[in-house]
Amino acid sequence: MKLERCKGTVDFPPEQKIAREEIVSTLTKVFKKYGFDPLETPILERYDTLSANYAGGAEILKETFRLKDQGNRSLGLRYDLTVPLARFIAMNPQIAFPFKRYQIEKVFRDGPITRARIREFYQCDVDVVGSRSLSYDAELIQLSLDALKALKLKCIIKVNNRKLLNEIVDYAGIKKDPNSVILVIDKLYKIGKEGVEKELKELGLKEEQIKKITKTISVKGTNKEKLEKISKIINKEGIKELKEVLKYFEKDVEFDPTLARGLAYYTGTVFEIVLKNKDLGCSVGGGGRYDKMIGSFVGKGEIPATGISFGLEPLSYCISKLRKGKKTNTELFIIPIKTTEKSLKIAKKLRDSNINTDIDLNNRNISKNLNYANKKDIPYVLFIGEKELKQKKFKLRNMITGKEQLFTLEKLTKYLKN
Amino acid sequence: MKLERCKGTVDFPPEQKIAREEIVSTLTKVFKKYGFDPLETPILERYDTLSANYAGGAEILKETFRLKDQGNRSLGLRYDLTVPLARFIAMNPQIAFPFKRYQIEKVFRDGPITRARIREFYQCDVDVVGSRSLSYDAELIQLSLDALKALKLKCIIKVNNRKLLNEIVDYAGIKKDPNSVILVIDKLYKIGKEGVEKELKELGLKEEQIKKITKTISVKGTNKEKLEKISKIINKEGIKELKEVLKYFEKDVEFDPTLARGLAYYTGTVFEIVLKNKDLGCSVGGGGRYDKMIGSFVGKGEIPATGISFGLEPLSYCISKLRKGKKTNTELFIIPIKTTEKSLKIAKKLRDSNINTDIDLNNRNISKNLNYANKKDIPYVLFIGEKELKQKKFKLRNMITGKEQLFTLEKLTKYLKN
Repeated sequence: MKLERCKGTVDFPPEQKIAREEIVSTLTKVFKKYGFDPLETPILERYDTLSANYAGGAEILKETFRLKDQGNRSLGLRYDLTVPLARFIAMNPQIAFPFKRYQIEKVFRDGPITRARIREFYQCDVDVVGSRSLSYDAELIQLSLDALKALKLKCIIKVNNRKLLNEIVDYAGIKKDPNSVILVIDKLYKIGKEGVEKELKELGLKEEQIKKITKTISVKGTNKEKLEKISKIINKEGIKELKEVLKYFEKDVEFDPTLARGLAYYTGTVFEIVLKNKDLGCSVGGGGRYDKMIGSFVGKGEIPATGISFGLEPLSYCISKLRKGKKTNTELFIIPIKTTEKSLKIAKKLRDSNINTDIDLNNRNISKNLNYANKKDIPYVLFIGEKELKQKKFKLRNMITGKEQLFTLEKLTKYLKN
Repeated sequence: MKLERCKGTVDFPPEQKIAREEIVSTLTKVFKKYGFDPLETPILERYDTLSANYAGGAEILKETFRLKDQGNRSLGLRYDLTVPLARFIAMNPQIAFPFKRYQIEKVFRDGPITRARIREFYQCDVDVVGSRSLSYDAELIQLSLDALKALKLKCIIKVNNRKLLNEIVDYAGIKKDPNSVILVIDKLYKIGKEGVEKELKELGLKEEQIKKITKTISVKGTNKEKLEKISKIINKEGIKELKEVLKYFEKDVEFDPTLARGLAYYTGTVFEIVLKNKDLGCSVGGGGRYDKMIGSFVGKGEIPATGISFGLEPLSYCISKLRKGKKTNTELFIIPIKTTEKSLKIAKKLRDSNINTDIDLNNRNISKNLNYANKKDIPYVLFIGEKELKQKKFKLRNMITGKEQLFTLEKLTKYLKN
């Protein structure tokens, strides 16, 4: 049998998984600081939930893994964490609003595979459900700035508002479905002004209409200046909401009137987290306000919500390019020299003092053990022979410098803890 | 549309998920202390991997969720973390042995649903690959004792050896497949001595053979006494290995000659973690040595391995029965009194000092805010009005005692950190 992984999936060996665990733990800490609590929902969802009209939409359904259980029920692997959140809210009417939850779990998409896109991947989502207040949009932007800072990544958060995009289309006097026009606007930074003009022409827009659009979306200046310039042309809900959200920020947050974000369910603020380092050039997260989706699941009224999703895969990729991670969590490797049983007692004491300790239990010789510790990048090695046990002093080798020092067990513990 | 979860799956709202995250973080800490590093493998595996001869076996395949990707490839959702580990080892021949890894991830089984069995659940696995040394079996038992202690659960670890079970069948002169006999022996504590005798008779065993078996498996006394009694009857590999493993332990580890554990791939030591509290009466984990499975995947020679798996579901269930968990991670809720923007700056400072802080951004009145904080079980509430901002002193209410105190921001931070 030829051994292979399922196409589009990846194994993460310890040196990569350690970095992933650190990212998750850093994000979790920031999410908690902002008053978010965790939720877990299943990976398996009923297909009728995933394919509901107001859920992720037709495009994403094409990439949804489908399966049946033994009872012949039609199921799917979830493609995001937002639809399950909506289903959870709908099924739990007793929940106090605002419901602030984070969720760091796997989602699945049976789509094209690239460096940044695999078929099962972690999303790290933070959402506020049950409030129309734009201050929560601002809170999520602030949280994102803090999260990226905690991850030691320099980022810009691009912000826009879907209402403004609709208003621009309206202002240009376009009567047809605004989404096709918005999708072209979204490409400004990819295909340039000429590209946008060309594609809008292909959509059948008149020259005057195209001018109105490109003039509005290519305003320059600070956030304040851009907002002022546009509000002289269109002064409606979109601009008012953007002013309300952006007033909290002075730097690293950029108003970008072209930003649309794909998903159809956004209704107001949208944002995207982009790294400043252009070489890494990828979006590491994004989100926005979706005031209608959850209410549609519940079946009555609107339940406003706003949220952001960080991608663990792009974050890990970028961090791995910027700095070398740890290959192991183990701090100390004990080499017993014909003293396994007694060495195990010492290992126990060190472990009880919270020192991550490995020990050879294979009776290997010293040089084989040193090779092993070296290959695994364990920073310290401790030698324990009968002599050392009698003297109650043990030789510690720093595996990077090669320096060796004698320690009592007590002093060793203190030394390793610093 | 009627909203439902997929049958056999569960949502974990914050009050449950917080407890689950605490268990995972406690286990991870213990795993790291013993020198284990993390591995992540995909949930989707090729069906031919999951159904390989030497993998989980026919029974578990009946409960395996199957699906196809767009390329019509036959896939399955993994039913355990051991088969993926074997596949990973087989595909990565460069790995240094012993390979000590932990893995805390979801597995799926489309089987009968009970309180303790749902269709997707977390396994928390620790394995040592590449060593025949029984000291690693002992290390896993010690790790389990430490893990349960860290979780504040009192447990007994039952230990046996599959070789001994085969030797008992052999000693009774039974020529047929030993597994059917071993499965009956495993039921001693469930169905009693008479039950075992009856079922062995039904299997066609002679009275003398049955006597030989029941006499051996019902030895009484300390571990040492039981080992001595059996070794007078059968003194082969099984007993020798058990003596080697059990010599490290004085209490909370019990030699149980009836313990078999279902999975066919075990080859030596087997263990099971049982809570002392009989009311909770469930196994929270177990494992054993499987020296042949990984080598079969690789296709040449034996690659010995030993491992243990903790079940997050039974652990969470037992802990929830024993003690009340936190309903929120949030430590402080800020009630701005017409001071939202300035209060947000104070929230930012508290968050920067690592205090988990939530804040009302809905301009609700005081009594609504107090109700919300109360419903969410947030321990402290801070009131921020214009007066407080001028005086730079803020009123903190302890939501449990009702006591209120005035603090400067600096003193508040210190107070909340203790």
